[in-house]
Amino acid sequence: MLIVPEREIADLMTREAAFDAVEQVFASMASGDAYNFPVVREAIGHEDALYGFKGGFDRAGLTLGLKAGGYWPNNLEKHGLINHQSTVFLFDPDTGRPTAMVGGNLLTALRTAAASSVSIKHLARTDAKILGMIGAGHQAAFQLRAALEQRNFEKVIGWNYHPEMLPNIEKVAAEAGIPFEAVPLDGMRQADVIISITSAFAPSLMADHVSAGTHVACMGTDTKGKQEVESALLAGAGVFTDEVAQSVTIGEAQHAVAEGLIKESDVAQLGAVINGTHPGRSSDDQITLFDGTGVGLQDLAVAASVVELAVRKGIAIEVDF
Amino acid sequence: MLIVPEREIADLMTREAAFDAVEQVFASMASGDAYNFPVVREAIGHEDALYGFKGGFDRAGLTLGLKAGGYWPNNLEKHGLINHQSTVFLFDPDTGRPTAMVGGNLLTALRTAAASSVSIKHLARTDAKILGMIGAGHQAAFQLRAALEQRNFEKVIGWNYHPEMLPNIEKVAAEAGIPFEAVPLDGMRQADVIISITSAFAPSLMADHVSAGTHVACMGTDTKGKQEVESALLAGAGVFTDEVAQSVTIGEAQHAVAEGLIKESDVAQLGAVINGTHPGRSSDDQITLFDGTGVGLQDLAVAASVVELAVRKGIAIEVDF
Repeated sequence: MLIVPEREIADLMTREAAFDAVEQVFASMASGDAYNFPVVREAIGHEDALYGFKGGFDRAGLTLGLKAGGYWPNNLEKHGLINHQSTVFLFDPDTGRPTAMVGGNLLTALRTAAASSVSIKHLARTDAKILGMIGAGHQAAFQLRAALEQRNFEKVIGWNYHPEMLPNIEKVAAEAGIPFEAVPLDGMRQADVIISITSAFAPSLMADHVSAGTHVACMGTDTKGKQEVESALLAGAGVFTDEVAQSVTIGEAQHAVAEGLIKESDVAQLGAVINGTHPGRSSDDQITLFDGTGVGLQDLAVAASVVELAVRKGIAIEVDF
Repeated sequence: MLIVPEREIADLMTREAAFDAVEQVFASMASGDAYNFPVVREAIGHEDALYGFKGGFDRAGLTLGLKAGGYWPNNLEKHGLINHQSTVFLFDPDTGRPTAMVGGNLLTALRTAAASSVSIKHLARTDAKILGMIGAGHQAAFQLRAALEQRNFEKVIGWNYHPEMLPNIEKVAAEAGIPFEAVPLDGMRQADVIISITSAFAPSLMADHVSAGTHVACMGTDTKGKQEVESALLAGAGVFTDEVAQSVTIGEAQHAVAEGLIKESDVAQLGAVINGTHPGRSSDDQITLFDGTGVGLQDLAVAASVVELAVRKGIAIEVDF
């Protein structure tokens, strides 16, 4: 079997490869060729850690396995390690034998960034010029970097609950040679695309902060109770997601569904748009919203992709298991 | 991290080490120091395979991780590989980083054998002389070999639906220098200990096949619908298990509970007997029954034990992950 350690991922994996892997697996999910297993997520009662497994199987790509790991809040302070720790294990679907073990930390950041990026490709207006960022943490930089490749953006605007963090994303915009402007929340009305990547339990972006024709990618809500945008925003929007079951229970759509503003059947799979079985954006004026909840198949897809790259470059460690 | 391939397990792992690991983790489960995560088990729609994850955390032993794998029914014929394929992954509970990857095939057989063996140690009469085997497949040989070490057995008697398989267990008895006799099911009345290890959906061993004072270990039922012994047998017995929640839903006790013959609260943890918080067998005449459903923590415990042995012998492969 092959091993690709975390330290190799940064040099191997590209945003393009992550984008292609995620786009493909969203398509497979929508066509019924790929599905995610029930998620296991446990507060283990040690180091305040959350630990669990996200698995799945992609019959089209023949990718089977899981991401194992979680969140260790004391890692940085106690051990100088990042708090999110994960590892991806791939198996041969023909025999059940393990085929690869891959560091999952950077991959998780890249696949999450790829998801909003795929949503922009398929749902944002092609003439989008202004990109709005809600959130300016570590992951926000990844989302922004990937998003900038999807349209000819001329300006990035940003808001964060802690404004002193905005330089995190201003720096990414500067690297891409694009001007950055800090704005209040209602300043988001000028945005053509908005990415929200926060860990909040109350909405920041309200419906009247979003102009007609905007594409909004909500990437931060992955737990019951979390919320990034006002649920009324979903009522008037074309709502898309990676996985409908997660979207309406632990994703951004949980609130709009619970309040009766939309029904589960109003939430479409982004993969269906990729496959061409859903038309996607209905008009230049429609607000589209992507509820990115994060699925195990994304992790498996980028891991399979990086293993391929590692083999090609002769970097994968081979162990006779 | 450390890697212990399947091919090394046979030379490394002993029945004694498996016994100790399983006894310890049953005790930890009963004292609330260890718990199993929800089991993921999926028919993946490819090669008729069942695939999934059994995870858990033992705070006392600081063992965290999962067994991943399952059943690939075409492996032997198509690939010359065994049909059960599994791998155990251990993680550092302090940081979430992976610490070991261990071949899980032989370990699964050994930990299952260890479970009935632990039940015999703590529940069978000390003067037990005759050991009865229901089932004579691959796993039956493991159960028998481990059981023979727990009491001074003078005879092994066996029954199998396909009697032509009985030589599988006769051979194990012969290796131990103990006479073997094939018997009809009612011949089990002479047994002091009975191990049932079949994959049946209707009971073989009936209540009137079992004499007073016998200890019965039911090791084959791990799925809704499976059944090895008549449910009336449980009504009159002291019923013990590895994990109560599994016992009453997918274990042997599911039927007696569904039929109202016993209640969930009648099923005790074997670990409580090990810990001394449950008296165990109440009299020489009581029938005791252990419902061994199989839990992820057993896999983690034997894997952690084999990693220790592999390190001591310099056999573990170290990979800088």
